Amino acid sequence: MAPTQTQSRTTTDTARALLDARYGADEAPAGVLLTETIAGLLNHRSVRAFSARPLPEGVIETLAAAAQSAPSSSNLQVFSVVAVEKPETKARLAEIAGGQKHVAEAPLVLVWLADLARLEEIGRRAGAPTDALAFLETLFVGLIDAALAAQNALVALESLGLGGVFIGALRNRPEEAAQLLGLPPNVLAVFGLCVGYPDPDRPAQVKPRLSQRLVVHRERYDASLPQDALDAYESALKAFQEDQNMPVVGWAGTALNRVRGAQSLSGRDRMRAALTALGFGLR
Amino acid sequence: MAPTQTQSRTTTDTARALLDARYGADEAPAGVLLTETIAGLLNHRSVRAFSARPLPEGVIETLAAAAQSAPSSSNLQVFSVVAVEKPETKARLAEIAGGQKHVAEAPLVLVWLADLARLEEIGRRAGAPTDALAFLETLFVGLIDAALAAQNALVALESLGLGGVFIGALRNRPEEAAQLLGLPPNVLAVFGLCVGYPDPDRPAQVKPRLSQRLVVHRERYDASLPQDALDAYESALKAFQEDQNMPVVGWAGTALNRVRGAQSLSGRDRMRAALTALGFGLR
Repeated sequence: MAPTQTQSRTTTDTARALLDARYGADEAPAGVLLTETIAGLLNHRSVRAFSARPLPEGVIETLAAAAQSAPSSSNLQVFSVVAVEKPETKARLAEIAGGQKHVAEAPLVLVWLADLARLEEIGRRAGAPTDALAFLETLFVGLIDAALAAQNALVALESLGLGGVFIGALRNRPEEAAQLLGLPPNVLAVFGLCVGYPDPDRPAQVKPRLSQRLVVHRERYDASLPQDALDAYESALKAFQEDQNMPVVGWAGTALNRVRGAQSLSGRDRMRAALTALGFGLR
Repeated sequence: MAPTQTQSRTTTDTARALLDARYGADEAPAGVLLTETIAGLLNHRSVRAFSARPLPEGVIETLAAAAQSAPSSSNLQVFSVVAVEKPETKARLAEIAGGQKHVAEAPLVLVWLADLARLEEIGRRAGAPTDALAFLETLFVGLIDAALAAQNALVALESLGLGGVFIGALRNRPEEAAQLLGLPPNVLAVFGLCVGYPDPDRPAQVKPRLSQRLVVHRERYDASLPQDALDAYESALKAFQEDQNMPVVGWAGTALNRVRGAQSLSGRDRMRAALTALGFGLR
């Protein structure tokens, strides 16, 4: 079995600090169990400012091994990853992602793919039908496999002292991402992961999340959504934004702007058309 | 920043053993970097046999905190989780999942939800439109957020010496899962996660994965899919199956059976209809 790590009740200052940063002091859960790995997870922050320090040798193999160790639905392994280090390709990825310059600046960008093409080709070689690949569900499996794998890679790189950030905006223009990376039909670039050593002069901080009272349900879904928990989150996020010298806009307003309508989706309102163009059946 | 863990080149027997188990000796990558966390990731195995030992106090709060610390696309946080401990509910979940008895036997089942209902309700309270929730892309964000969160929970629980397995088969009958858990419209049970102490008498082993030569691409996608790497995987998986006293069926044949056609999807060929019934727009 996996080696059990040293654990202790969160009576320590470290644990309290981690949970206060993640939830705000008023909503931080009590009684949380800590291991070195869990402390690393709680301490996650999205890094967009990288130093010039080169990556260690073996990092791609390491992150790929971590990624492939994540569960895969029925062991179908319907994901792949493209490791991009060439400046011109990273610059094009940055452009596709709406001009996010950290995509160009990171020494490494891992692009996680929902990859139904591998099984299609294996079927072709075996003379076996692969008609289920054309169903929406199979694309879901690809998205989920890719996400599980990528999250393991992120956890792994943070344990090495590296930083990263996911780039969902590659989905703004899926056909361009596919063309750039030479993807065959039935493969979608789900998101990117920028990887590098964090710039110590521009440190990232832990972003607060919604209270567990809003996210964690016991036995059945509770739709009551207590307004005081939502208000507490607005306060926690505003305190974070103030501390970071960011515009103090809170959460709900920003989130609602993102889901207002087709125009607020930065091109992703045409995801169905893009997927069809990329060969997915979506049945 | 996240504390950097002790790292060393994989010259040690431990590292070599982890990678040999994951890839088979012939395809194990060299030069992999190790931390305590990475060793835990590489050592993952899906646990379906649980002991009667009760879970530690605080485990749900701990796994939820780890889960919520995963990245969330634009911080929309469009996932939720239902923690199920009641035997009758677990028994029903096991039934929905095609009779997987470990779902009933695990002391805890976490059901991960793509949850677009929370933002919908927040929009309703604010009198703001949320039309983008009706797009396929927004459901993708929910699936990805849920998967990233769940993977963090799995990593956390394994570091505590617990074991787990994801249950994608909850998607065989999405409406029944939704009814059982009281989900509002616009919420999908993406998969379950069984949690418990592994039964020491029925230990799980590391399952081999495809060679990195088949999964990791450099700069651009390489569609060549070397047959010798596929053959090596068949051998590695057959050795694993033999060692586990499982039917020695290899990989490609089993995988191809799963993607043969609508009938091989265990009901998930009607995912689109199910999602429509659950209120998703899928535009």
